[in-house]
Amino acid sequence: MSKIAVYRKEHFNAAHRLHNPALSAEENAGLFGKCNLPNYHGHNYEVIVRVAGDLDPITGYVIDTKTLSTLIKMEVLERFDHRNLNLDVPEFKTLNPTAENIAVVIYNLLRPKIDSKHDLKITLYETERNFVEYPA
Amino acid sequence: MSKIAVYRKEHFNAAHRLHNPALSAEENAGLFGKCNLPNYHGHNYEVIVRVAGDLDPITGYVIDTKTLSTLIKMEVLERFDHRNLNLDVPEFKTLNPTAENIAVVIYNLLRPKIDSKHDLKITLYETERNFVEYPA
Amino acid sequence: MSKIAVYRKEHFNAAHRLHNPALSAEENAGLFGKCNLPNYHGHNYEVIVRVAGDLDPITGYVIDTKTLSTLIKMEVLERFDHRNLNLDVPEFKTLNPTAENIAVVIYNLLRPKIDSKHDLKITLYETERNFVEYPA
Amino acid sequence: MSKIAVYRKEHFNAAHRLHNPALSAEENAGLFGKCNLPNYHGHNYEVIVRVAGDLDPITGYVIDTKTLSTLIKMEVLERFDHRNLNLDVPEFKTLNPTAENIAVVIYNLLRPKIDSKHDLKITLYETERNFVEYPA
Amino acid sequence: MSKIAVYRKEHFNAAHRLHNPALSAEENAGLFGKCNLPNYHGHNYEVIVRVAGDLDPITGYVIDTKTLSTLIKMEVLERFDHRNLNLDVPEFKTLNPTAENIAVVIYNLLRPKIDSKHDLKITLYETERNFVEYPA
Amino acid sequence: MSKIAVYRKEHFNAAHRLHNPALSAEENAGLFGKCNLPNYHGHNYEVIVRVAGDLDPITGYVIDTKTLSTLIKMEVLERFDHRNLNLDVPEFKTLNPTAENIAVVIYNLLRPKIDSKHDLKITLYETERNFVEYPA
Repeated sequence: MSKIAVYRKEHFNAAHRLHNPALSAEENAGLFGKCNLPNYHGHNYEVIVRVAGDLDPITGYVIDTKTLSTLIKMEVLERFDHRNLNLDVPEFKTLNPTAENIAVVIYNLLRPKIDSKHDLKITLYETERNFVEYPA
Repeated sequence: MSKIAVYRKEHFNAAHRLHNPALSAEENAGLFGKCNLPNYHGHNYEVIVRVAGDLDPITGYVIDTKTLSTLIKMEVLERFDHRNLNLDVPEFKTLNPTAENIAVVIYNLLRPKIDSKHDLKITLYETERNFVEYPA
Repeated sequence: MSKIAVYRKEHFNAAHRLHNPALSAEENAGLFGKCNLPNYHGHNYEVIVRVAGDLDPITGYVIDTKTLSTLIKMEVLERFDHRNLNLDVPEFKTLNPTAENIAVVIYNLLRPKIDSKHDLKITLYETERNFVEYPA
Repeated sequence: MSKIAVYRKEHFNAAHRLHNPALSAEENAGLFGKCNLPNYHGHNYEVIVRVAGDLDPITGYVIDTKTLSTLIKMEVLERFDHRNLNLDVPEFKTLNPTAENIAVVIYNLLRPKIDSKHDLKITLYETERNFVEYPA
Repeated sequence: MSKIAVYRKEHFNAAHRLHNPALSAEENAGLFGKCNLPNYHGHNYEVIVRVAGDLDPITGYVIDTKTLSTLIKMEVLERFDHRNLNLDVPEFKTLNPTAENIAVVIYNLLRPKIDSKHDLKITLYETERNFVEYPA
Repeated sequence: MSKIAVYRKEHFNAAHRLHNPALSAEENAGLFGKCNLPNYHGHNYEVIVRVAGDLDPITGYVIDTKTLSTLIKMEVLERFDHRNLNLDVPEFKTLNPTAENIAVVIYNLLRPKIDSKHDLKITLYETERNFVEYPA
């Protein structure tokens, strides 16, 4: 039988600004426009975690979505929710918190906690109209 | 030209409980928690059927979505809608009606009715936050 | 200053069937069709609670949505979520669990817990296409 | 003929923290919990503006939604979008930017710009699950 | 007991252009811009019909949503779905098919078919961001 | 590091009818039913453009979504929005504007404008329930 994928959606609310500390203020303003404004803005981020693998014939689950939900809450929401990504999250001290980079950081936080025989993919909605997927 | 995929979304309302008849009551309660409560609960299931293949140059269709909608209604909704999956659907007499297993059953019901040269994939939403995809 | 309304949305998953115990089986089948099927079906109910009143100048709140969320969870979700409304909820032992009646029962559960100087209104979505509001 | 209401939905992304400058740090933390964290968090705010009045028989409009959209962009989004409400918006220098207060401020910004014979109402979504309406 | 409101949502796909036949081409272009382009454009209209009244103690319904759905299909969708509102619907031969006017026409089609002791209200979504309500 | 995908969603409102000019009126009516009605109908089309590639370490972007949004507006919305696809868009003079063919045309308009080292995929929603993806 083919693999099956399970998805769990969670959300967090965070402040951020797009800013690469290795660039000058002018370069940052030129690249990121109003997303670079100094006092931050924010989003209701929606994160969808996809775990794909074989069905466990005893449970009928690939992974229990309650387990997956708890894992996302502990590893991601505890770190990010109601926080300022640039100031409060160590990973973004030197890394620009674009949707792409946030998705990669979430992937790296969750990958060691998910059975290595399962595939993992992160979809992150920054707004309803802008979202990213990693790995593609 | 590459293949193109057509999606059709339908929904059904059904009762179920998570329960593996091969396990004891204690084991079921331990594995499935409140999803195992004896008198059932239910969901507004959303099913998205994806059919991928070559474009028919006469119609401009891969498959007519009206045909696909009718097929889903006849093969899936007629069996599942306003039913108790555990009690009313023969496939779940011995199979635990997790979202994963429901998606596999829907796939197996539709696969013989869809042209074998077309790819078929099922996405099933149990809630807005929990959903599965088969094959992954 | 005019009153302001605060809304909090929660959801629960429950089984039910439409059935008036005071009527015959034939009358129930005639009135409620497939919604009367004996083994129940179910829904992802979305409940939106509206509390309207004056703004508290200290907090800037009419009511703290965390307080309101906790209240809905304790009074409504604890009773209804993952339950069979007809079998598990005393209010529906003799009352047909239509969306209308469920909304009235939710209103009556919450009304004594909300400050009497505040207005209360319940909107209940049975599906995305069918919903009710009480009081109108 | 009765009045008719026209609604226009716009959105903005902003940072904020709940904080009443007239209270102590301990009182603010006690009242607002993680919403009071010092480095701000943020939201994708959705604002729905409702204008009700008589139909203009020449245009078939109460108000042109393009006019209304432009007005919301100029008066609200220009001030709030990609901003920190506490730091960048003068109205919230001393006013706690709860959803309730943001809705009142939006109302007060738009009311002088909308024909006085029309009714005005603001609905503001802070998240999909928390929203407010002014006047109620 | 207070009244209760029942809502049913249906949709139809139609072409239209905004055009007041009593005005000149220049006046129409000035008032309606690209909505006046001669070859029509179109929308997925969502119509939400609200019927408010007393609860029937036998059924637990204000009105059966299946009855309401059938009524909307017969009176509205049969006339409007997959049609050109300007060319195919007699009411819009001389009336500009703005969202406001479409909502009024739907109200007038349904009002005689709904029990006069019930209140009736129409909400019409032209897009997710533009919608109207009649009566307000 | 794996590739990452960026998605941008835009929408346009257009009229169309399904009609293959190479077939007779009877054949067209038989194949396309009410979608072939002569005076057109229309849709709120949602188009989601997916660009996948390597992350730029300077910007933290695969592609700036503002750039992508502007590109979709210039290449797609300028041609399609508030237009009649059959009459106003040269590509559909001889090509039936099914969702499948519209997605292919959008792909062909955007492919030369997107860096050739990036993957491109189009998802087009004709309605909430009918959508297509190209390439599959």
